[in-house]
Amino acid sequence: MDEVELLIIGAGSGNSIPTPQLSALSIAIVDDAPWFGGTCLNVGCIPTKMFVHVADVARSARDAERLGLRNVHIDVDWPAIRDRVFGRIDAIAMSGEEYRRSGEPNVSLVRESVRFTAPREVETDSGRRIRAERVVIAAGSRPRAHPAVPPSPRVLTSDEIMHIDALPARLAIVGGGVVAVEFAAMFEGLGVEVVQIARSTLLRDLDPELQGRFMAAAAASWEVRSETNVVASTETADGVRLELSDGSAVSAELVLVAIGREPNTDRLGTEDVGFDHHPDGRLVVDRYQRVLSGGEATAGVFALGDIDAAHQLKHVANHEARVVQANLLAGPDAPEVKLVANDLAPVPSAVFSAPQVAWFGETLATAEQCGFDAFEVLHEYAWTAWGWALEDRDSCCKLVVEALTGRLLGAHIIGPDAPVLLQPLVLAASNGMSVRGLARSQYWPHPAASEIVENALLKAEDYLLGAVT
Amino acid sequence: MDEVELLIIGAGSGNSIPTPQLSALSIAIVDDAPWFGGTCLNVGCIPTKMFVHVADVARSARDAERLGLRNVHIDVDWPAIRDRVFGRIDAIAMSGEEYRRSGEPNVSLVRESVRFTAPREVETDSGRRIRAERVVIAAGSRPRAHPAVPPSPRVLTSDEIMHIDALPARLAIVGGGVVAVEFAAMFEGLGVEVVQIARSTLLRDLDPELQGRFMAAAAASWEVRSETNVVASTETADGVRLELSDGSAVSAELVLVAIGREPNTDRLGTEDVGFDHHPDGRLVVDRYQRVLSGGEATAGVFALGDIDAAHQLKHVANHEARVVQANLLAGPDAPEVKLVANDLAPVPSAVFSAPQVAWFGETLATAEQCGFDAFEVLHEYAWTAWGWALEDRDSCCKLVVEALTGRLLGAHIIGPDAPVLLQPLVLAASNGMSVRGLARSQYWPHPAASEIVENALLKAEDYLLGAVT
Repeated sequence: MDEVELLIIGAGSGNSIPTPQLSALSIAIVDDAPWFGGTCLNVGCIPTKMFVHVADVARSARDAERLGLRNVHIDVDWPAIRDRVFGRIDAIAMSGEEYRRSGEPNVSLVRESVRFTAPREVETDSGRRIRAERVVIAAGSRPRAHPAVPPSPRVLTSDEIMHIDALPARLAIVGGGVVAVEFAAMFEGLGVEVVQIARSTLLRDLDPELQGRFMAAAAASWEVRSETNVVASTETADGVRLELSDGSAVSAELVLVAIGREPNTDRLGTEDVGFDHHPDGRLVVDRYQRVLSGGEATAGVFALGDIDAAHQLKHVANHEARVVQANLLAGPDAPEVKLVANDLAPVPSAVFSAPQVAWFGETLATAEQCGFDAFEVLHEYAWTAWGWALEDRDSCCKLVVEALTGRLLGAHIIGPDAPVLLQPLVLAASNGMSVRGLARSQYWPHPAASEIVENALLKAEDYLLGAVT
Repeated sequence: MDEVELLIIGAGSGNSIPTPQLSALSIAIVDDAPWFGGTCLNVGCIPTKMFVHVADVARSARDAERLGLRNVHIDVDWPAIRDRVFGRIDAIAMSGEEYRRSGEPNVSLVRESVRFTAPREVETDSGRRIRAERVVIAAGSRPRAHPAVPPSPRVLTSDEIMHIDALPARLAIVGGGVVAVEFAAMFEGLGVEVVQIARSTLLRDLDPELQGRFMAAAAASWEVRSETNVVASTETADGVRLELSDGSAVSAELVLVAIGREPNTDRLGTEDVGFDHHPDGRLVVDRYQRVLSGGEATAGVFALGDIDAAHQLKHVANHEARVVQANLLAGPDAPEVKLVANDLAPVPSAVFSAPQVAWFGETLATAEQCGFDAFEVLHEYAWTAWGWALEDRDSCCKLVVEALTGRLLGAHIIGPDAPVLLQPLVLAASNGMSVRGLARSQYWPHPAASEIVENALLKAEDYLLGAVT
């Protein structure tokens, strides 16, 4: 039995836990992935955005006929694109692993799968047992399997598809969530014929106005089969044939299954040792990121990231890692009063599809369901000079505001630069600022895209003042 | 002698003064420009950004070799680009003029030049005299003439060059300021061979680090002749030959003179009626936007925009218009206590060149000259995932912070999306927020470009905490 003071399972955001402040602890980091550094760096946010940007550049030029650019021709050198991305990422992953392997005397690296044998004890595949004073479960999530579309050399997940040798002529994407729409836009932008099959609509949890706009934009760029499911999958001579629940069929050279991600709790056997789980398999944690067992905090056991978080987002995982880190420093038996609570809100989300979407908080409907007296305002990109520059017709910013206080309950942007345009609204909402006076408390450089946000704020303020009803 | 209650000279930001709240006043608006709606709409911010965006799209694709895009070919249909821009803008300008001509019974439009005959009295070119209870001087600025490069069909100003029939093969731009570098990038992006001649460096007032980066980027994209001046200009068979002070010469099919803008006070004869002027010709106003005469506020005379403002920026002019509007409502003899002061700060600037630049406030050097105990931090785009996606090597965000308070004294960004990335920093600085705790008071969606700002803030905070020296 190996004994350590801190066991970290998962080298994604978990890998940020060991800092100089924890150098007095003996630490073991466990990760069984073929890569090092977690989903975001290796098969998630970062490489996808690196591909997406290339696709966006190509698409922007191809779509610029309306701006007066003609006869646009662009060849896509897929191996060069892929190798640039992974040349950079793999080097970072490898040097990260090398550092963890030999960089600090108090940290050891275990490259095996583990299962819990007790709340603070695991056994590796090779039979090694590790007992720890404190455990951080940061083992993340993995692509969910589709029962009717089993993996094959032509049926890939998001872990695999970025590594393909050549672009397919035609790609079927099964799924309608964030990962699915990002890959759809990326491959479409790189010239692949994309057909996307979604059980309901695309990005179904979006604000309804944005959801409708996203669907329309997607359907104008690639083939969308919504409200249908895949019931069977057959390999053919040159691809895969998917039978759909609506009776039709789709054939493609390659299939990406992207129907969501599930937490890796089952692989760790976390149910066997009495930890509490949400219905979807995530660990239940309290506001200090302590894993619960029977509704009570499990001494010395924390979780962070996709394995517990309601938002499967890297910035959430990183923030949870900071909370866990602070609470580890408080010692294994710290009273709650010494612990740091995770109360950062709201949580922004960004989708790097075509179009981009970014949002946080409530829609008008969910705000009202929560009992708020709320209203919403919408400002089109097309009503600003930047929208004229873009020749934009489909992009907008919507704000959901509490009528009593002027507090931003939600913000929803669809269109170019949505993720960065959202930030001043995140800042305001996070710091309890009312929309009252906010736009006029600062300059907004003309004619930058941020004027879209400025004008939405002004409209919200007018509404508050009763000037608009 | 015509009598009105309010005379507004200049239909740019001045045109936003008559609102329903002023509908009880008889108002005359004077403007002698060939267009209606001022510089920004017709020959300034808005059309230039509409052109710049097209150029940016073309350049992004052409520069994407490093991202894996190959054999990029784009034809530039200049007449289509131009006609899209002015098709939109001219329609807005015309409907604006039509509205002012006939939209409200209390407003009349005078399309003539005027000169002051008394502080609240003007005479038009045709001899019509107008006396007013209140005057708003919003007559803006115009491109400065170059003594050695007189205007001709081949020597144009920024007012004219966007209307050319065809792109020149080679364009010489005289000037190194904001307008000059925006046009340089725009024409270069549209495939024109550009040579830029600047008396000193390009954008010489920028933070020195950003200035050096801008110069390097510009010189890599077009020809830059800095530290030299044009001493003579000769028309040739197929263009213009410019003799430079360094003894060399430059030939080009077309020349753009963009060496700054000068206020239109001389055309109005404002010196004749005793108004105070800055050495550069701008009107002197107090914090209520009242025009001074002999150091005292001139009763009922206000100014706004380029004709008085230290920053020749549309968002500044618009804010001054709001201040003037409020103070007009206070009545002609309002005591100062009833007036609204113009104290909005800091003023952000954005340059839509290639690269983009945006900033506000002090550099470290100017902060120290002002007596601040300040420090600066710099974060490269290349150190964030978004920088990896861009394959960026040259872009950065620099913050200048007061050591005692953590207050943002300045922020300076060079690179893609600089104008929108700046906004959360404008918000924070305008609302007196310290950098202490600011980054961690909110989420920054990963891996959006805004992480560049987040990381710069974290670095500033570390510095404050003494973690970095």
